Amino acid sequence: MRSKLPKHIGFIPDGNRRWARARGLPKEAGYAFGIEPGLELFELCRARAIEEVSVYGFTQDNTRRPSAQTEQFQAACVQFANTIFTRGAALLVLGDERSPLFPAELKPFRQRKGEGIKVNFLVNYGWEWDLNGLKNGGLRSSDVSRLDLIVRWGGGRRLSGFLPVQSVYADIFVLDEYWPDFDVSHLGRALEWFAVQDRTLGG
Amino acid sequence: MRSKLPKHIGFIPDGNRRWARARGLPKEAGYAFGIEPGLELFELCRARAIEEVSVYGFTQDNTRRPSAQTEQFQAACVQFANTIFTRGAALLVLGDERSPLFPAELKPFRQRKGEGIKVNFLVNYGWEWDLNGLKNGGLRSSDVSRLDLIVRWGGGRRLSGFLPVQSVYADIFVLDEYWPDFDVSHLGRALEWFAVQDRTLGG
Repeated sequence: MRSKLPKHIGFIPDGNRRWARARGLPKEAGYAFGIEPGLELFELCRARAIEEVSVYGFTQDNTRRPSAQTEQFQAACVQFANTIFTRGAALLVLGDERSPLFPAELKPFRQRKGEGIKVNFLVNYGWEWDLNGLKNGGLRSSDVSRLDLIVRWGGGRRLSGFLPVQSVYADIFVLDEYWPDFDVSHLGRALEWFAVQDRTLGG
Repeated sequence: MRSKLPKHIGFIPDGNRRWARARGLPKEAGYAFGIEPGLELFELCRARAIEEVSVYGFTQDNTRRPSAQTEQFQAACVQFANTIFTRGAALLVLGDERSPLFPAELKPFRQRKGEGIKVNFLVNYGWEWDLNGLKNGGLRSSDVSRLDLIVRWGGGRRLSGFLPVQSVYADIFVLDEYWPDFDVSHLGRALEWFAVQDRTLGG
């Protein structure tokens, strides 16, 4: 039986575009409203002494979207990463940095940098890109530990390629609220739910 | 947007032991009560013209359980596999056949055999065993297609190592009922739910 507090939580902050649309804004306007909630969640995790968090920024699949969107989520990711690094995080940015879709400003973080809560930020990440590392010695996410809990906003009951190896035994908590509507109670609800899950890891 | 009917469904029939305990039976007695529901579900999928199904039998992690349990779930798997093959299925048994924990009777099915609905039956399966194939040319589950929908019984909101690559974009439907309490309405509920999910595959 694992501890009742997760050591490592994954976050899938989905629903930015639907949130914007519901407000009559262009879809791509949603991403900028996702930064502040991310910083709030970061502080909450730190306050709860969570050791490691993994956050879905954007995927290689996402980059097939119109450039009005890709530019907005790239900018939002850069701003989020720089801010949490400044506030104090051991930050790893995980994704294919050889692509022009990977923001150049984040290249220094392809190696973990800084002190504090471990943050793995998935930027231009792809599950195939990650697993293909196995053909040459190891997962590209080998510095990311097993996930205990995954929290997803926006109602989707799926992983969408999020760290498939680290997710194998994770408990998945889904919130119907769109990510920009993040509220501090969300993390509390997820942790309470996690504490009562029966975790046997197959044994 | 994918079709509203899933082409490939994964089934995680969990809760056999809890079902037995709730009836005052020894834990291991639950597995035998999982066979008939499995055959019923097989016929339902066939009737609905589902092209491919993947079914969790047992995993390498499960084999760490007491032998009273492992013997029961091994026997249940052999009986289920033989019955659906006789009724007409293109059956592949997927798992580490080099281990004594893999039932010898199922070795002929390590290569797909038979005609009819495609069934992938995971027996002594391990997600690491599967992925380790990548180090030598390809996934060990390379003959299993991408999953559209996963249905899990027993209330657990997790994948428990179920086909991590094929699961990356699958919608996950969880039933709180224990597997031996399977009811024909369960598949109907899962398919109705699936039909209204918004599936973008990241695009």
